Amino acid sequence: MRGAVLAIGTELLLGDVINSNAALLGKQLAAAGVEVVASEALADDLGLLVGAVHRHLAQVDVLVLCGGLGPTLDDLTRQVIAAAMNAPLTRDPRIEQQLRDRFAAWGRPMPDAVLQQADVPEGAEVLENTAGTAPGLWLEKDGKVVVALPGPPHELRAAAATVWPRLSAMTGRVVTTRQLLLHGLGESAVAELVEAATEVPAGVSLSYLASGGLVRVRFTTSADPAVLAPLVAAADRALGHHVWGHDDETVEGVVHDRLLARGETVAVAESLTGGALSAALSARPGSSATFRGGLVVYATDLKQELAGVPGPLLAAAGAVAADTAAALAAGARERLAASWGLAVTGVAGPDEQEGKPVGTVFLAVAGPTSEVVEARLPGDRDRVRLLTVQSALHLLRKHVSR
Amino acid sequence: MRGAVLAIGTELLLGDVINSNAALLGKQLAAAGVEVVASEALADDLGLLVGAVHRHLAQVDVLVLCGGLGPTLDDLTRQVIAAAMNAPLTRDPRIEQQLRDRFAAWGRPMPDAVLQQADVPEGAEVLENTAGTAPGLWLEKDGKVVVALPGPPHELRAAAATVWPRLSAMTGRVVTTRQLLLHGLGESAVAELVEAATEVPAGVSLSYLASGGLVRVRFTTSADPAVLAPLVAAADRALGHHVWGHDDETVEGVVHDRLLARGETVAVAESLTGGALSAALSARPGSSATFRGGLVVYATDLKQELAGVPGPLLAAAGAVAADTAAALAAGARERLAASWGLAVTGVAGPDEQEGKPVGTVFLAVAGPTSEVVEARLPGDRDRVRLLTVQSALHLLRKHVSR
Repeated sequence: MRGAVLAIGTELLLGDVINSNAALLGKQLAAAGVEVVASEALADDLGLLVGAVHRHLAQVDVLVLCGGLGPTLDDLTRQVIAAAMNAPLTRDPRIEQQLRDRFAAWGRPMPDAVLQQADVPEGAEVLENTAGTAPGLWLEKDGKVVVALPGPPHELRAAAATVWPRLSAMTGRVVTTRQLLLHGLGESAVAELVEAATEVPAGVSLSYLASGGLVRVRFTTSADPAVLAPLVAAADRALGHHVWGHDDETVEGVVHDRLLARGETVAVAESLTGGALSAALSARPGSSATFRGGLVVYATDLKQELAGVPGPLLAAAGAVAADTAAALAAGARERLAASWGLAVTGVAGPDEQEGKPVGTVFLAVAGPTSEVVEARLPGDRDRVRLLTVQSALHLLRKHVSR
Repeated sequence: MRGAVLAIGTELLLGDVINSNAALLGKQLAAAGVEVVASEALADDLGLLVGAVHRHLAQVDVLVLCGGLGPTLDDLTRQVIAAAMNAPLTRDPRIEQQLRDRFAAWGRPMPDAVLQQADVPEGAEVLENTAGTAPGLWLEKDGKVVVALPGPPHELRAAAATVWPRLSAMTGRVVTTRQLLLHGLGESAVAELVEAATEVPAGVSLSYLASGGLVRVRFTTSADPAVLAPLVAAADRALGHHVWGHDDETVEGVVHDRLLARGETVAVAESLTGGALSAALSARPGSSATFRGGLVVYATDLKQELAGVPGPLLAAAGAVAADTAAALAAGARERLAASWGLAVTGVAGPDEQEGKPVGTVFLAVAGPTSEVVEARLPGDRDRVRLLTVQSALHLLRKHVSR
């Protein structure tokens, strides 16, 4: 079964909004066994959109439209489906009542245009949207499936809940993906090790994805998922300690889980990342069980005042130095009463600092085991900050995984 | 002049990568006077891509391809252009030498496939990529312009530097956009005030964009940009103190500029945002002139230990309370020796805390003027954290703008 995604909205073409829905829909369709062959964004233009629906349906079995289901004049998706699929709109009294009730509960007058959200193309089923006012639509006609989903991502997720299992049942395929997540090894080196250690059978595909210093090895099959386990195990053995996680794991999630299992906590002292390292460690629900807090010692004097880096050390070695990073980690650990202290100091740019070039970063961990690492990170200010956070999380992960 | 964007890469269809380049390219093309009518992502498939180039060029004058210029076998963009535009590839000796020099400097052997990055379609000009190895391409043929840019966003920006002024010169249009940025007023209320205060002349378009608690009012023209100034001034007067900035300003940028002008600094104490408020204040270059640092007091006892919130207050009012927020702001101000202390404490979720529902947030500023605000923020954990950061920045902005 082949599919296409059509995102609707002039704001996508003007670049006012990043089309993150396309990625979400691509992932879900692939997992349901639908091969996505095109993903397009088009402006709010009835003729153009009707033409695009016809063009896509000549190539694919499933077309997912997203956006254009709201209450304003430029929300055309229902009319597009009606015209392209020859399925005239009728007003659904149940949806109309829901809309009236909702506005009554808010105590606000309801503009008439809101009621267009109750218009349903002939033969279409309504997909309930628990997160907003615009319901989605599912229409099967002439051997094709057309699905329309609201544009705001949380509404899209709510309205699409029943769509993925239904498509999966139609394709009769459940695509299973297993991933190994690696750090500290290049894509080509990873491929060499994996391909020497595994023999990939027919019906399984092997791919690699590199981004942001991370390499993913991915085995995919729509056959019996049991075939993947020995492949993952063999790749795990070949890649050894470079594998830090599997599937949808995140490095902060792995750190949290390991700390929780060990009954330990972490505290941060960070300079160039300005709070972003602490933000990563506190992002997931439940992080208060392992994350104590952090010191954002952006100004140099605060490295002494808040984190207890000795003044003579700061004066001699400077703010960007291995010993300073070690003292920051020890200070965070002690002053925030944590099992582990994790610290970063360095030059995010755009200008060099203390004669050290942009990208010079010192990372330190202090705890049951301790280490200081110097790194030269590539890219501009934003990228150096991002890579510093990732590197620090991996440094801690290494120590709590021992 | 009409344009289209074609992003190339199977990873975009599988949803492994969010297609943020499409938004960047849409923005730049619009500013250069090119009307973007379609934006598409397609898989790495030569036949499919050649067909798409033909299809788009039947509709538009400018086609921008992005991605597929790298050194691996599935990087097909050069071959696509050669086939679709009937412009055979020849190897450019200057690019070849640059590639050889670069690998020699890295001390790494150069795989042969790397050299395909030196292949240039007949008649195409090379767009230098100072951020990576894959140069871009500019080809004018048969009255059409085809531009190919590398996929990694920082390489795309580097290779595209000369493209936008050149397209602007070709369209003979410079599209000028002026924006007013608002906080604390809904989209429909904004529209009512603007439309009562301005008469928009022919050749100027007025639009509104609402996202993440922020409303943008936008005037656009490709005529004489001087026509926009009185419109912006009238809208400014009508919207009064709700306008916090213009054009590409960010709230953290406005806060930084105002603090710098006043010779003042800020320090943070934050709980539910876990470092993200400090990270926002330290994101831009030069922020060390106004941002001192922060205390991430995630664990409750650290609110007392690090930020000096009195123990009896914590015991009586709890961690999520107006008085606790005020004490956090005062503590950050004093202990980090800043002109202003900015603090947030609240419930990010997923579970309620101290009997307070998810989204309950207290924000406090302490300094020459002081204030505590209670907010009920909507959404899940990520969204509550994001909106808390935005609300805190706007609270400080209000105080430093007086």
